[in-house]
Amino acid sequence: MKLNIALLAGDGIGPEVIDQAVKVSDAIALKFGHEITWTPALTGACAIDAVGVPYPDETHEICLKSDAVLFGAIGHPKYDNDPTAPVRPEQGLLLMRKKLGLFANVRPTFTFPSLLDKSPLKRERIEGTDLVFLRELTGGIYFGEKGRLDGGETAFDNCVYTRHEVQRLAKKGFELAMTRSKKLCCVDKANVLETSRLWRETVQAMEKDYPEVTVSYEFVDAVAMRLVQWPNSYDVLITENLFGDILTDEASVISGSMGLMPSASMGDKVALFEPIHGSYPQATGLNIANPMATVLSAAMMFENFGLMEEGQAMRDAVNKALEAGIVTEDLADGGKAHGTKEVGDWLAANI
Amino acid sequence: MKLNIALLAGDGIGPEVIDQAVKVSDAIALKFGHEITWTPALTGACAIDAVGVPYPDETHEICLKSDAVLFGAIGHPKYDNDPTAPVRPEQGLLLMRKKLGLFANVRPTFTFPSLLDKSPLKRERIEGTDLVFLRELTGGIYFGEKGRLDGGETAFDNCVYTRHEVQRLAKKGFELAMTRSKKLCCVDKANVLETSRLWRETVQAMEKDYPEVTVSYEFVDAVAMRLVQWPNSYDVLITENLFGDILTDEASVISGSMGLMPSASMGDKVALFEPIHGSYPQATGLNIANPMATVLSAAMMFENFGLMEEGQAMRDAVNKALEAGIVTEDLADGGKAHGTKEVGDWLAANI
Ligand SMILES: CC(C)[C@H](C(=O)O)[C@@H](O)C(=O)O
Ligand SMILES: CC(C)[C@H](C(=O)O)[C@@H](O)C(=O)O
Repeated sequence: MKLNIALLAGDGIGPEVIDQAVKVSDAIALKFGHEITWTPALTGACAIDAVGVPYPDETHEICLKSDAVLFGAIGHPKYDNDPTAPVRPEQGLLLMRKKLGLFANVRPTFTFPSLLDKSPLKRERIEGTDLVFLRELTGGIYFGEKGRLDGGETAFDNCVYTRHEVQRLAKKGFELAMTRSKKLCCVDKANVLETSRLWRETVQAMEKDYPEVTVSYEFVDAVAMRLVQWPNSYDVLITENLFGDILTDEASVISGSMGLMPSASMGDKVALFEPIHGSYPQATGLNIANPMATVLSAAMMFENFGLMEEGQAMRDAVNKALEAGIVTEDLADGGKAHGTKEVGDWLAANI
Repeated sequence: MKLNIALLAGDGIGPEVIDQAVKVSDAIALKFGHEITWTPALTGACAIDAVGVPYPDETHEICLKSDAVLFGAIGHPKYDNDPTAPVRPEQGLLLMRKKLGLFANVRPTFTFPSLLDKSPLKRERIEGTDLVFLRELTGGIYFGEKGRLDGGETAFDNCVYTRHEVQRLAKKGFELAMTRSKKLCCVDKANVLETSRLWRETVQAMEKDYPEVTVSYEFVDAVAMRLVQWPNSYDVLITENLFGDILTDEASVISGSMGLMPSASMGDKVALFEPIHGSYPQATGLNIANPMATVLSAAMMFENFGLMEEGQAMRDAVNKALEAGIVTEDLADGGKAHGTKEVGDWLAANI
């Protein structure tokens, strides 16, 4: 297969972890006879520095022309203490999601047998956890009208959803549930919010099209609780943008390391793959960042092209590295800590 | 002291746990020479059944005339599967909060030495955790305009905050921080929401009035994560209504039992005290519900009257019961499970 991938390394540790994912992907291409063309493009703080905006049009064109986007991370401390600065890296992220139509953020949370004791949660609570959040990514309070009234004394953010937006996300949820345990949980706050009531009635109306799927409806506060109590009671969860932001970050704790969790964002156009960890500025250039989440994001990318064996080969390499202790300092636990690059090299060599 | 307490037992296990808190409070009154007059009033599903509305005017009058309100829980399964029903118990709760002006919900999360191993989190992660959330309770997306457009195809919920609303909540947060470790965390989503930016700038402007308090600003998604990773890194946290709903429920997991966590809601008028657990309908009338959260809520009530010794005596009784294994089935862990009433009797006898 010929693959054209846009490479948005971003800020902080982004470039370092992206390098490793490229290296491992190239090893896959070599082994399975594919041809990957990587096209780098600017985004985030580095784009602001270079051209004044966090998601330049040129970057957008490159993404649109690609078969997929591999994304690192964005964000820089110089913007952190002032979320009200006129131009911020996050705006680029939101604009990118909107312009690329990436309405479904897919975030799996799973455990690694060799890391069960790294989690802040007890082993018996997390064993067997394998859940996936589908977070709506281009609607809700993130994109509704926002502003000030009364000379700045009152602020508002409007949360808006259309039935169509709920349907297309829920459809992906039902379809994903059909390929897994046929269990779907719709997370909302329908006892308080009108948007949640629209979510609930829309999903309820779709149940008849997926008679084999068992759907449950749970309030976001209850899920925030049960997610740490009994994570393995969940399988596929669908939810709106802000709830998804909060719950997927909470869920990432289960695996014991943020440095391991990949994600995919899908839409009508191109799909984007990225680690869930941020740009971790303090670690920039130190060769200590864990590249595995980015490698696993690349694995999701191959799988999204239908290249399941390729994806599995990458996952196997990661599992082997974890078992062999070829890990960065976040997972070293007193043992030897390997560099970002060394872990990448080892993974590429073990494809 | 002469105390006039409105008693809103509510639904499900509400009446049973309230009975025990009354019993223990009466023992306190006897020992310390106070006189408590309890005035029962209807709220929740039982109020809908009796008079058609979940928070009757008569109940409101009784609350207003009281020195404090002790609240059980509301909610009934017949409303659970239909959050769109025209009259629902939750509406009563929201109306009550609004009409009583209960803008600050105080939710402590702490651990009990004898229960450290009951938590889904590892002992070393939670040891020493003693944090308090101050959740804004009468504003935000709960109370903003909500509705449908396009013939029902579009739904919206507006989140609104005024500077005044943020100030009065933050003031309580700063004051509470001054009585504790002088650490305050403002939880928001200022990288996305205008209301959060108002929160952040308002709290920032108040910092100069409390020079001894160290304030940190964290995004809600990061807190959802760190709360389970390192709960004991937090002390006082302030946040808006919906974030508070989600995070306080998440935090309740730390202690190992929802059945132990009390709360207080404060405002300009009367204060209200309630366990954070719900009405737990399946357990209604079975004499198995844990009354300790309600007893500890009553302890917060005494403390709010400045009766610190009384509050401490109730806390000591609960600790003693936990150590002696005088607990309901949720905490029995293979040992003997005592009844709701028996635990209440034991606590009253040990005042
Ligand atoms: C950086 C921020 C705007 C973003 C979000 O809230 O969506 C991030 O938290 C995420 O989850 O990707
Ligand atoms: C029942 C519901 C409306 C309520 C809320 O969301 O405030 C509850 O979850 C709570 O936290 O007291």
